[in-house]
Amino acid sequence: MRLPAIALTANDELAAQLDDAINNKTKPLGSLGALETLAKQLGLIQQTTAISVDRPAIVVFAGDHGVVAEGISAYPQDVTWQMVENFLGNGAAINVFARQNNAALHIVDAGVNHDFGPRPGLVDRKVAHGTRNFAFEAAMTTEQCATAMEHGAALVADLPGNVIGFGEMGIGNTTSAAALMHKLAGIPVADCVGAGTGLSPEGVQHKQRVIEAAATRHAGATEAIDVLATFGGFEIAMMTGAMLKAAALRKTLLIDGFIVSAALLAASRMAPAILDYCVFAHCSDEAGHRRMLGQLGARPLLQLGMRLGEGTGAALALPLLQAAANFLNEMATFSSASVSEKSTLE
Amino acid sequence: MRLPAIALTANDELAAQLDDAINNKTKPLGSLGALETLAKQLGLIQQTTAISVDRPAIVVFAGDHGVVAEGISAYPQDVTWQMVENFLGNGAAINVFARQNNAALHIVDAGVNHDFGPRPGLVDRKVAHGTRNFAFEAAMTTEQCATAMEHGAALVADLPGNVIGFGEMGIGNTTSAAALMHKLAGIPVADCVGAGTGLSPEGVQHKQRVIEAAATRHAGATEAIDVLATFGGFEIAMMTGAMLKAAALRKTLLIDGFIVSAALLAASRMAPAILDYCVFAHCSDEAGHRRMLGQLGARPLLQLGMRLGEGTGAALALPLLQAAANFLNEMATFSSASVSEKSTLE
Repeated sequence: MRLPAIALTANDELAAQLDDAINNKTKPLGSLGALETLAKQLGLIQQTTAISVDRPAIVVFAGDHGVVAEGISAYPQDVTWQMVENFLGNGAAINVFARQNNAALHIVDAGVNHDFGPRPGLVDRKVAHGTRNFAFEAAMTTEQCATAMEHGAALVADLPGNVIGFGEMGIGNTTSAAALMHKLAGIPVADCVGAGTGLSPEGVQHKQRVIEAAATRHAGATEAIDVLATFGGFEIAMMTGAMLKAAALRKTLLIDGFIVSAALLAASRMAPAILDYCVFAHCSDEAGHRRMLGQLGARPLLQLGMRLGEGTGAALALPLLQAAANFLNEMATFSSASVSEKSTLE
Repeated sequence: MRLPAIALTANDELAAQLDDAINNKTKPLGSLGALETLAKQLGLIQQTTAISVDRPAIVVFAGDHGVVAEGISAYPQDVTWQMVENFLGNGAAINVFARQNNAALHIVDAGVNHDFGPRPGLVDRKVAHGTRNFAFEAAMTTEQCATAMEHGAALVADLPGNVIGFGEMGIGNTTSAAALMHKLAGIPVADCVGAGTGLSPEGVQHKQRVIEAAATRHAGATEAIDVLATFGGFEIAMMTGAMLKAAALRKTLLIDGFIVSAALLAASRMAPAILDYCVFAHCSDEAGHRRMLGQLGARPLLQLGMRLGEGTGAALALPLLQAAANFLNEMATFSSASVSEKSTLE
């Protein structure tokens, strides 16, 4: 995939205008905390002080992982397609939270090991019936990885809104994400692995050993694109491509949990400026996520102890993006409301 | 004020039903984190597994403080009434966030040092034109404190919904709240005071000395009701009364920041079971709030570095209460969605 050009958001004049607009609202300076930072970021991304959350979408990418053969998940692989069916039936958490927050929900088959047949509501971009087992061979060929990224970019180009929340489903994909984190950030595997959907401590140790052995086997993969192809999943590579395109289109990327952050980590190694476009929805309870957020220089909006994936954290953070836009657009200023400003003497 | 009886929420059978309902949803066990805890709490308060967020209200209590004569605020006292006008004109942050989240907003004059005259939208429960200066004398008489609490209780009894968010406005009221925290929780004044609306470090030190001197002067006030009358504000005492009544009516109390938490601290000393009814919206950036939340055994939903008051944190947390209700009401179960459960073998 040819990387799209991602313009920098640096614009000193606009930044000063945004600071002024935020600081003149009827509130003590800085008292809206993270919402003020967020309003400024949205302004820099959208190149305006009249920021908006316009037709937000959540895109959930689903894929299966050959590495499940190593027994690294608490749930059987069939749960991936069963949960896709649950998404299509409106019964999953992401359905509930996207509906609540008026986000369009798109479900993408990036590479589930199941034949759904033509299904209304399912976007079929299946690259293959699951990746290969990276304990033995690269999860994807270079071509498959490129195809996944290109599909992601094309999907995003078709979305109408200016905020895209990323979500995923794929039994085994915390193992893939932990391997990516280890290889791309140089963090010891022990600090990357967690319980996923609910492994026992022994299960987590086994998962760690599987990743360590695979990292040794594939020590030659060091470039981000090679690491992604070797250890990633179709849903992860598709997200990486989608993120790069979304930033190039000056959309706001709403980053969910551990797996979505791993896709972003890969994207940020290819185009570091992408991080200017990212809002980090939450800090997941999955063990490695806090450290991965640190690597990305992220300050997540929510800390709710969640570890569900699907884009649920992204959906729950949407009202905070809306609040940032609303306070900047709707609050009175000190002068318009005739409110006295801070005393110069104390 | 006669304290209303606050029933305990203990109900083992209902608690087990709620656990079952939450755990059978199509998600890994516990993976919705704080939302699961919240759903269970709402169920125990509302005595049902069919929980709801019904006609939520935000009530903002405004009052002035005699202690501002000591120079403990960065803003002049007139800002209290000016901000009340801003609330009535829909220009403040709380107007924006209440509107966004479909919460009814009620503005109460508990004791502002200003004659508003009859004003549509302003609930006139003025006890007096501001409290007296507690650096020299008790802020309120015992009768004034009782009147404020009774007004608060009556106001809440008239609200139709099942969730009440508490907010406040009052120049000087972080000083009052810090004094209450010191006296009611036995925490050193230095750990209770903060910058409020924006004091310099020297201003914070001065504020600390004012409170320490007042605490020495009024060392005899030890009962919660006496402490509240001596160091409180009309808006704080009115909130305390409102909170006690709201819990007695089995409503959910959505607790905002530092000052609202001080009102709750007083209420909890009068009726400890009130804490079962409280959802803590956020951890404010005001220095003492984290420690006060610790005193209350609270786990706040949001940590956004906000320190604005007005009930803004409460309004922003409302979508999370709605999300807790929605996932419990709307998500499919493993059996209804034919999703496989966790493997017994790993």
